[in-house]
Amino acid sequence: MIRVIQRYDFSAAHVLARPEWTSERNRNVYGKCANPAGHGHNYRVEVAVEGDLDPKTGRVLPEGMIDALVESRVLRPLDGKFLNRDVPEFVQVVPTAENIARHIWDTLAREVTPARLASVRLVETRNNSVEYAGDEELV
Amino acid sequence: MIRVIQRYDFSAAHVLARPEWTSERNRNVYGKCANPAGHGHNYRVEVAVEGDLDPKTGRVLPEGMIDALVESRVLRPLDGKFLNRDVPEFVQVVPTAENIARHIWDTLAREVTPARLASVRLVETRNNSVEYAGDEELV
Amino acid sequence: MIRVIQRYDFSAAHVLARPEWTSERNRNVYGKCANPAGHGHNYRVEVAVEGDLDPKTGRVLPEGMIDALVESRVLRPLDGKFLNRDVPEFVQVVPTAENIARHIWDTLAREVTPARLASVRLVETRNNSVEYAGDEELV
Amino acid sequence: MIRVIQRYDFSAAHVLARPEWTSERNRNVYGKCANPAGHGHNYRVEVAVEGDLDPKTGRVLPEGMIDALVESRVLRPLDGKFLNRDVPEFVQVVPTAENIARHIWDTLAREVTPARLASVRLVETRNNSVEYAGDEELV
Amino acid sequence: MIRVIQRYDFSAAHVLARPEWTSERNRNVYGKCANPAGHGHNYRVEVAVEGDLDPKTGRVLPEGMIDALVESRVLRPLDGKFLNRDVPEFVQVVPTAENIARHIWDTLAREVTPARLASVRLVETRNNSVEYAGDEELV
Amino acid sequence: MIRVIQRYDFSAAHVLARPEWTSERNRNVYGKCANPAGHGHNYRVEVAVEGDLDPKTGRVLPEGMIDALVESRVLRPLDGKFLNRDVPEFVQVVPTAENIARHIWDTLAREVTPARLASVRLVETRNNSVEYAGDEELV
Repeated sequence: MIRVIQRYDFSAAHVLARPEWTSERNRNVYGKCANPAGHGHNYRVEVAVEGDLDPKTGRVLPEGMIDALVESRVLRPLDGKFLNRDVPEFVQVVPTAENIARHIWDTLAREVTPARLASVRLVETRNNSVEYAGDEELV
Repeated sequence: MIRVIQRYDFSAAHVLARPEWTSERNRNVYGKCANPAGHGHNYRVEVAVEGDLDPKTGRVLPEGMIDALVESRVLRPLDGKFLNRDVPEFVQVVPTAENIARHIWDTLAREVTPARLASVRLVETRNNSVEYAGDEELV
Repeated sequence: MIRVIQRYDFSAAHVLARPEWTSERNRNVYGKCANPAGHGHNYRVEVAVEGDLDPKTGRVLPEGMIDALVESRVLRPLDGKFLNRDVPEFVQVVPTAENIARHIWDTLAREVTPARLASVRLVETRNNSVEYAGDEELV
Repeated sequence: MIRVIQRYDFSAAHVLARPEWTSERNRNVYGKCANPAGHGHNYRVEVAVEGDLDPKTGRVLPEGMIDALVESRVLRPLDGKFLNRDVPEFVQVVPTAENIARHIWDTLAREVTPARLASVRLVETRNNSVEYAGDEELV
Repeated sequence: MIRVIQRYDFSAAHVLARPEWTSERNRNVYGKCANPAGHGHNYRVEVAVEGDLDPKTGRVLPEGMIDALVESRVLRPLDGKFLNRDVPEFVQVVPTAENIARHIWDTLAREVTPARLASVRLVETRNNSVEYAGDEELV
Repeated sequence: MIRVIQRYDFSAAHVLARPEWTSERNRNVYGKCANPAGHGHNYRVEVAVEGDLDPKTGRVLPEGMIDALVESRVLRPLDGKFLNRDVPEFVQVVPTAENIARHIWDTLAREVTPARLASVRLVETRNNSVEYAGDEELV
């Protein structure tokens, strides 16, 4: 078992607020990120996949497989977008770093076979990041 | 003469588009950054100031002067904001990296006396940045 | 369970030496870090916390909770200090990266409830870091 | 138990191709990395070691032990080299990031006693890295 | 006048040696980089271009112009290659960082009109880089 | 003319305070850096040298020349030291980033012939740096 970690970047806007809450409550819960017009980030995604080393090729995964998957399932839908408005997933769900990481995990988890998705790390600013490794059941 | 460079970060959303243009024309001029709902970045600002070294203190600038100036004039108005909507300057002017850098320069240029603002660098993504050093006349 | 990692920075001086040892023995054990007058570092601290995602807020922790805790318990006592002289903990205990990481862990471990402190990483130079995750019992 | 992570860098060339395969097959398996003349990278190696903290010294490992080991066993044989030609290990084994990480693990695993090698991370480009933690048996 | 800086990456192998010199002389002049089989780097290229800000678009350059130019003229010929063997320019000229930077400058200098190429910086390792800004005459 | 930039790192402690001033005045002038016991940093030094390209070697400087110079004149005297106590230059002169950069410039300026020292950049924290390029006369 060896772990392969690939890094990707996308830029997106979001608002952290629940529409049914008052702006004061949203401000209390989300701080300045509750600004109604929104703000944005350069997100960095680190996708870690574990699998067996093919003794012939010396690789865990076919060339470009993760790149293609992340490009079509993650970057195309999220890069250059306003998450709360352009991405169906985040119309109802608040696009916190935690929820974005979980969404990327859910999107990729069943696609990396026969390898196994080990974790998704989402770096939101140079000071904040989250890491999600799925539910025990999935593993 | 010695140059002091201080680095700051803010997160903001923007749309690159001129309202009077068709969305096709905006897409041609600004690429995916023309997405009407907007997207965002973690911006990094590097403010470079030149001045004489005070032989007593060994400093070019009073302690915390640039920090206070950038905090009140740049970060508070821009951090956590949607530039085209929340910032008067960018309601009419398209908030490209170039225009944001020039705006920060204009905001700070007359305030750093007796030192001299040498340049403002705005890093928009890990691959793109702009640097503005004012007009010849200002220098 | 999701992991949130937040990064902080502080600058401090230290000496690596045991007062009861000869300077030759200290030099053997700690290399150039045993210089009696001391030297210093920009330390980076990465605090990782694990907890359940609040389904309403999409957050693991209340806004600003870790920031406030680290600010008052870690940065204020350590930033801008000479660890062996200014910090009671390190008058007797040699402030190696290992001991600093453990001290930060001990300081924070009981405070992040109901979440769980997952690890403390202390980056001392661009080439050296340590990571501490507590004793089994604590977990 | 505390983990110490040390970072090292080396620069090397490699070709990803199996000599017995056609160049078309190698191109399919390895993409542009199959270029027969070779290409190269600045590799970054992060060696993580776990052990008990010596209560006297506050250290997990003797001063400079990992540095000396990595210098003689990893950097001297690999730095500035064409892996497929200059390094016996990689004359038969394709020097993918996975195989290089495993080779560094195998080289170091029995040498860091009484501590334990926890993982070897090899960063090949700013977007790709692998991490190897040995076989269960070894642990 | 505003300066736009764009960053690109490529990975290549090279040998620093003049074929007509003895290996001892090459070793004296180029150190370990003279290893006859070659070694390699992840090169980072920072292309800086200066021009007037288009008051309508707020941009110095048409969208994607530098990207397309660097992709076709710099990255495609150099990325994944052994410079001394695969790139005609470097069959005779030793591919030092200095010569690679100058080659990239020469390749781009006449193509960025009506803007002006301001400098090419080539970062070879995390400790070494060169910057070339052309001959006076060219400017 | 081409510019070569080399990066070095050292770790040191310092106090920013003038002994003849009250601690209140020092605190006003230097902020928390006036802490009497001292604090420290990982300093990064970027030495930029300009010179003519040797058409035979493709290099501006003899292999290892800047490394040897910086090692003996800058790193050995400053790395692992308490600047105000261990370094004669800084017993009287307050070791601000500005003064350290100027000291490194003065130390190196006459030694890099026939090339020319172009600038010394000293990065003190991830947010603060200074750059010194000498007096006009020296150039």
